[in-house]
Amino acid sequence: MERTLLEWLRRRLPADTTNRLPLGLSDDAALLQLAEQGACVITTDMLCDGVHFQAEQLDLDLIGRKAIAVNLSDLAAMAAVPLALFVSIAIPRSWEQTKVEAVYEGMMTLSSEFDCPIAGGDTNRWDGPLVINVVAVGQPPPGGVWRRAGGRQGDLLLVTGELGGSLLEHHYSFQPRIHEALLLANQYDIHAALDLSDGLALDCSRLAAASRCGALLDLESIPISSAAMRLANQTDYSRTPLTHALSDGEDFELLLAAAPAEARRLLEDRPLDVPLTLVGELIEAEGLWHRTDAGDLEPLEASGYLHD
Amino acid sequence: MERTLLEWLRRRLPADTTNRLPLGLSDDAALLQLAEQGACVITTDMLCDGVHFQAEQLDLDLIGRKAIAVNLSDLAAMAAVPLALFVSIAIPRSWEQTKVEAVYEGMMTLSSEFDCPIAGGDTNRWDGPLVINVVAVGQPPPGGVWRRAGGRQGDLLLVTGELGGSLLEHHYSFQPRIHEALLLANQYDIHAALDLSDGLALDCSRLAAASRCGALLDLESIPISSAAMRLANQTDYSRTPLTHALSDGEDFELLLAAAPAEARRLLEDRPLDVPLTLVGELIEAEGLWHRTDAGDLEPLEASGYLHD
Repeated sequence: MERTLLEWLRRRLPADTTNRLPLGLSDDAALLQLAEQGACVITTDMLCDGVHFQAEQLDLDLIGRKAIAVNLSDLAAMAAVPLALFVSIAIPRSWEQTKVEAVYEGMMTLSSEFDCPIAGGDTNRWDGPLVINVVAVGQPPPGGVWRRAGGRQGDLLLVTGELGGSLLEHHYSFQPRIHEALLLANQYDIHAALDLSDGLALDCSRLAAASRCGALLDLESIPISSAAMRLANQTDYSRTPLTHALSDGEDFELLLAAAPAEARRLLEDRPLDVPLTLVGELIEAEGLWHRTDAGDLEPLEASGYLHD
Repeated sequence: MERTLLEWLRRRLPADTTNRLPLGLSDDAALLQLAEQGACVITTDMLCDGVHFQAEQLDLDLIGRKAIAVNLSDLAAMAAVPLALFVSIAIPRSWEQTKVEAVYEGMMTLSSEFDCPIAGGDTNRWDGPLVINVVAVGQPPPGGVWRRAGGRQGDLLLVTGELGGSLLEHHYSFQPRIHEALLLANQYDIHAALDLSDGLALDCSRLAAASRCGALLDLESIPISSAAMRLANQTDYSRTPLTHALSDGEDFELLLAAAPAEARRLLEDRPLDVPLTLVGELIEAEGLWHRTDAGDLEPLEASGYLHD
């Protein structure tokens, strides 16, 4: 298996990656050539059958796609330019090679789209369920990486896309916001950013806390996805569309903080193909807040997906 | 779990790693600062309960230790200087925090010893067996990385340590040959190298093939470990000590190719704390060979551990 898969990956390695990966897939480790800057950005996420997906109920390529997408989303959160992927996999012993290749085909979709070749990895057969671990390596954009901690009091908060209801479909098909992040990092002064993996309310409170601020969300302006509305309409769910948009996990949109003038320039320019919405601001008072109809600040629960 | 473990890791992150990891463990991905050279070496290995270890029969720290050790060994194979580790783990839901920490304590042993902090990762709880994926990132030594393909016809072949019988004990306690590799890379001209993970015969044939040569092994000179002898003496095993030394997996010693004069200088200098033994040479005739008592070349089976 390991050799077969390695051969398959070698054939799929784009020819134009030799500058970046001068040794190809030939040695005990990969040699990755970076720009003169000499720094790299590294993230890793593990997906397990029964936890992050149900392998029996799903097109296998979507599993592979998601394993890559969540990692690219972490690179996007820091505006890092994708360079290479490393894939480790534990394959159920009963699986045929075609099923394994279907998973890798899903990976290849995003690997090709974001010019980020699979440069190494490890394959194992075992008696357990499917496990995929992906490492994404990028390099900082010319202006340096975005951080969670870079926000300042008074910064406006913006989100890409629409939020909530990811569970219905979006968490397998979402686009990691790499292109958006690189464009914004190149043309605008973004103070802080993260990708929304655990819900806007919780992730926003994290960005604010890392930046030693609080956050005031304007609940009227949260961009609610149609999936969040559908989910709220399903009788076995009791939450409102807004609650879904605030606290559903796996949106994988970007939350950005920028100085007011810069944020307004961004909102006027509309440089992205996806919506960009002003959802709040960073304030002095620690914690997460919203404004009541009477205009007073009221604490907002930082609800969302908490990993156990 | 994820937050508890992250806090635990943050407390264990050495203070002197801020140059290398300017952002610490705070963001969606790690920022890793490299020397001006601007290249990094990346390897990843996944260990699964029931395949690479039996969690119920083993001290848990040895599992964590091994997960790090196999990856550091891959860095040693290329003479890369260890920089950072990334650990993803799928933890059985029934495990208490103390068991998880025991695994991480084992990782910390080597992380500290080789000044290679855990700089990120991903933790998951699930209903399956323990899975650990480790990524090791290093940087090339000043003279550039060692490759499998760098060997030349006439080069002598050297191995560190003693071979075979790893199954009895060594595969959990082995020392990745980082220090040895860095010393050799710094002071000697090594043409090609790899770490012996699947047995000398098989791995030697791989190095030779990558270098477009054959390899002639001197069977009289193979350094046979005492474990290989004990294993051969056990009645339920029918192979000789030499067979074990040639084909047992997981020795994790280094196989090196160097020009004859350089290899002889090395053997005279004895710069390492571990044995260094001349075991053969690279020759023109493709394949793996040994010399019969009559002095003729005879094919030698490239036996070893083949991953399925």
